[in-house]
Amino acid sequence: MAEMLAQGAVIGILGGGQLGRMLSVAAARLGFVSHIYEPGANPPAGQVADRVTTAAYDDADALKAFADAVDVITYEFENIPTEALDILEAHRPIRPGREALRVSQDRLTEKTFLQELGLKTAPFADIADLNSLNTAIEQIGTPAILKTRRFGYDGKGQARLRKPEDAEAALADMAGAPAILEGFVEFSHEVSIIAARGLDGQVACFDPGENVHRDGILRTTTIPARLSPAQRTDAILLAANILNALEYVGVMGVELFVTPGGLIVNEIAPRVHNSGHWTQNGCAVDQFEQHIRAVAGWPLGDGQRHSDVVMENLIGDDMDRVPELARERDVALHLYGKAEVKAGRKMGHFNRIKR
Amino acid sequence: MAEMLAQGAVIGILGGGQLGRMLSVAAARLGFVSHIYEPGANPPAGQVADRVTTAAYDDADALKAFADAVDVITYEFENIPTEALDILEAHRPIRPGREALRVSQDRLTEKTFLQELGLKTAPFADIADLNSLNTAIEQIGTPAILKTRRFGYDGKGQARLRKPEDAEAALADMAGAPAILEGFVEFSHEVSIIAARGLDGQVACFDPGENVHRDGILRTTTIPARLSPAQRTDAILLAANILNALEYVGVMGVELFVTPGGLIVNEIAPRVHNSGHWTQNGCAVDQFEQHIRAVAGWPLGDGQRHSDVVMENLIGDDMDRVPELARERDVALHLYGKAEVKAGRKMGHFNRIKR
Repeated sequence: MAEMLAQGAVIGILGGGQLGRMLSVAAARLGFVSHIYEPGANPPAGQVADRVTTAAYDDADALKAFADAVDVITYEFENIPTEALDILEAHRPIRPGREALRVSQDRLTEKTFLQELGLKTAPFADIADLNSLNTAIEQIGTPAILKTRRFGYDGKGQARLRKPEDAEAALADMAGAPAILEGFVEFSHEVSIIAARGLDGQVACFDPGENVHRDGILRTTTIPARLSPAQRTDAILLAANILNALEYVGVMGVELFVTPGGLIVNEIAPRVHNSGHWTQNGCAVDQFEQHIRAVAGWPLGDGQRHSDVVMENLIGDDMDRVPELARERDVALHLYGKAEVKAGRKMGHFNRIKR
Repeated sequence: MAEMLAQGAVIGILGGGQLGRMLSVAAARLGFVSHIYEPGANPPAGQVADRVTTAAYDDADALKAFADAVDVITYEFENIPTEALDILEAHRPIRPGREALRVSQDRLTEKTFLQELGLKTAPFADIADLNSLNTAIEQIGTPAILKTRRFGYDGKGQARLRKPEDAEAALADMAGAPAILEGFVEFSHEVSIIAARGLDGQVACFDPGENVHRDGILRTTTIPARLSPAQRTDAILLAANILNALEYVGVMGVELFVTPGGLIVNEIAPRVHNSGHWTQNGCAVDQFEQHIRAVAGWPLGDGQRHSDVVMENLIGDDMDRVPELARERDVALHLYGKAEVKAGRKMGHFNRIKR
């Protein structure tokens, strides 16, 4: 472990939202200091970081100064502009590396990558225009979902096709952006696996969690997930397969559909993941610290849990529940310090520890 | 709970060491922001706080500005000058309150307070000069220990008397400061109880831990402590007794000697306590969050543990153990971000979770 970052080293984090915030706290717990890069003023992560740079991702001078001020660069979101990454990478290592970003920034590239690894995905097709969309609908069928290839999250940049006649309207929703049509998969439930790979190639997975979404946003993750021992092993092996193929360094979230025919990869996120928040109260080393350990060249935690947990997100007005939740036994609150409550905005989460 | 501080409220923390640092992180977890007041430059707490005021405790303008910028004031150490407290209290509530500070800032006042509550302490006597010291030695006997009444911690400001003839040298060690002579107590082991009292008078205790000291500094705390059910109940009742008598708001550490004749109170600390660090990995709500909940007028966590834990301090060169500890399963590291390793300096701790 010759490359283990020393006490006082500076972790540069792109993005100042709740993930950057929790990464910053984890970095501090290991004796590092954090420097946040975020275009928006007063980011939640800034409240618990040593330094904050408020600048846009096309501000080359700010990017250079940031890179020079840190020892390693990581990020809380995958949609970082390529040009910014080019500037940063010339100065400091970016972990996870560029290949993970290249693959996950484009849904088509990602699905193709997964298929080439021998993993199952939903049926998909590249959509350039109405002709290719109609052809894809003939192959994939409806219902199906049209998504922009890049920059989508939490249900944004998506249009559902209930029947072939919805094609034109759905395509209009894409506003000319390159798109991908995805077929629906019949699945019993969704699970995700939070996996990590160290600088030395060591891989460690947290126990898979079972996710429930509402309106395209994660609501709860329950640990343990309903999985057979064979499915659990499959989930761990396929996650390790993905991380190794990308020579990945850091934590990744891998969302999986559970079907009678096996596990189908929904999507991968090259970062700490909402469905891994349960680890804060279920494991000695949580996903945030695991990520920092990886990017700092430290040994990974083993990922085993000491407690079963149900994580629930607090979205928008769910914040009204805080006074009551604060009274509940075995509930650990994690609030994000966001100035304004908005509908659909993730304001916090809580972990309920099962005894 | 009309007085529950709202999201975004500012917690002012006097002292920027590791306790202030961990309080700051806990405050953030509940959606508060922290403002540290600390005379020393670049305090460990500043790395995870929203704001830092670097100023002395006799800087009236800085104290006023700090008080005006926060919603409530708390502290990580008990030896805050009275004049500073007078200025701060004129602007904002200080929690825990002045009575707790008055009592705990002076060993004689503290021991007298505890006796008046009907609690057992080591025998003690007020020492003004060599005459009173010799008289006290006749009553209390030797070995005994002479301590300054104020501003002592971790074995500083103390002189041991092995025999009556040590009186003069010990008194010289006090350098003219008011002192107290304490008799030795025969005890089997030391335990501490971390207790909290909310703004509404609710009291909650964490499970008592068993402490081992070396060279006057805490080395390990083991949960659960070796205590009979009756002793455990006694410990909780006496802690609640102390908190209620002081109309206390916040977390307090109460150190107890276990003797065949019952529990003897060694000392109280009106703040989060090193022997409560295990709660970070043993409880849904740890001592730092418990303290913030109390001073913010929130309901307290119930204090029950989900896991047994052994906490061990990393002092000075113990930091060389970090790479190996980072590899160990069920070990949670908590490092303090201190720039320089010094002999006897608390650099971090770790919690080993027992499964």
